[in-house]
Amino acid sequence: MLFRQLFDTESSTYTYLLADEATRKAVLIDPVAGNAEQYIQLLRQLDLTLEVAVDTHVHADHITALGILRDMTGCATMMGEPARASCVSATFRDGDKIPFGKLELEVLYTPGHTDDSYTFLYRAGTRIWAFTGDTLLIRGCGRTDFQNGNSAQQYESLHRKLLALPDDTRVYPAHDYKGWTMSTIGEERAHNPRLQARGVDAFVTLMANLKLANPKHMDVAVPANLACGKPRAA
Amino acid sequence: MLFRQLFDTESSTYTYLLADEATRKAVLIDPVAGNAEQYIQLLRQLDLTLEVAVDTHVHADHITALGILRDMTGCATMMGEPARASCVSATFRDGDKIPFGKLELEVLYTPGHTDDSYTFLYRAGTRIWAFTGDTLLIRGCGRTDFQNGNSAQQYESLHRKLLALPDDTRVYPAHDYKGWTMSTIGEERAHNPRLQARGVDAFVTLMANLKLANPKHMDVAVPANLACGKPRAA
Repeated sequence: MLFRQLFDTESSTYTYLLADEATRKAVLIDPVAGNAEQYIQLLRQLDLTLEVAVDTHVHADHITALGILRDMTGCATMMGEPARASCVSATFRDGDKIPFGKLELEVLYTPGHTDDSYTFLYRAGTRIWAFTGDTLLIRGCGRTDFQNGNSAQQYESLHRKLLALPDDTRVYPAHDYKGWTMSTIGEERAHNPRLQARGVDAFVTLMANLKLANPKHMDVAVPANLACGKPRAA
Repeated sequence: MLFRQLFDTESSTYTYLLADEATRKAVLIDPVAGNAEQYIQLLRQLDLTLEVAVDTHVHADHITALGILRDMTGCATMMGEPARASCVSATFRDGDKIPFGKLELEVLYTPGHTDDSYTFLYRAGTRIWAFTGDTLLIRGCGRTDFQNGNSAQQYESLHRKLLALPDDTRVYPAHDYKGWTMSTIGEERAHNPRLQARGVDAFVTLMANLKLANPKHMDVAVPANLACGKPRAA
């Protein structure tokens, strides 16, 4: 599997390119609109065809490149069913597979940050890569105070779904703000402060007391992203 | 080998942590002073001992963490012999090995960006990781117009030393300014504009015409880094 991690410095978003080296078919996870030309350049230079572009959830802090990539490459575009984003060519739900060439991502529903938050798993033998969106960040987790976020659901997603993965599972989040690029489930289990809350009630209290400011571009980004970042011409 | 890539958002510097999982001994390549506390935290959480901290060259755009890390952990500190940095505990030159636990980095002298620029190679079977400093960047290369830089030497380092490595060698540079995290020798051979110059004379002309502004903090960073970023108390 050909793998590249790409960073958007403006929103501190990580975008992931995974490709099947045999068929040269690729998937982009959480692409950012402002970097679309760069993705196209990289795909061309690596001799890859973009089969599908997916978002882990409807983002509030940057504009998705799904619409632009659809227009530029003809790729499929996918978001989770609960996003109700009519712009995408297909939706996914828990347990679905998203194929790229002869490889695939496995879809795991991990709501809590938003009600349309998913984790994508890629398995190679016993090795697992988890693309956790904003559900699990490195030494943190996504906030739960808008877009139908729910701290109790987030607790369940973290503890019953993500921490159920093996300790050596590689964790690739949608963001990092301190320059760390990856982690593992074992590391997060031991050292993520948000995972140390004892029980769901303690976690709900912890999340309720964060008092975070709203993302700067949220009022623009959420409706734009529900239209894949690029409304179709009327 | 345990491997982590860390990014300093202020100077767009990549720092690399490599560790021997058996002995838990680690090396840090190009650590940045402002992130020293974070490195210590990560080392502690991963249960690692920092054996040595090294710079690929004397940086002009950020302050090295070598001195701080020496004071905080007692690690060895190393720079290349031509740096003439009396603060380090040892110097290296072409062909040397830098051990961390039972693993080692191989030292390759690649002058041109500066006269003390080195590439570190890590080999695991037939797989090679090249930590290229500013000698080879992703789709670019370091400038050659100060710190005894020399375009003709840079050409030789790029073409005779780095491009002599196998195409699937992973390239991990000291910087990237567009959010790309890695490349390969094959990719750079094919798509790096600086490597398309036909012959040394064309390359020297190309580099002479770049007309770049000096790095903002160069007058502070270079002398500070020659003192490992943290002069010993008088």
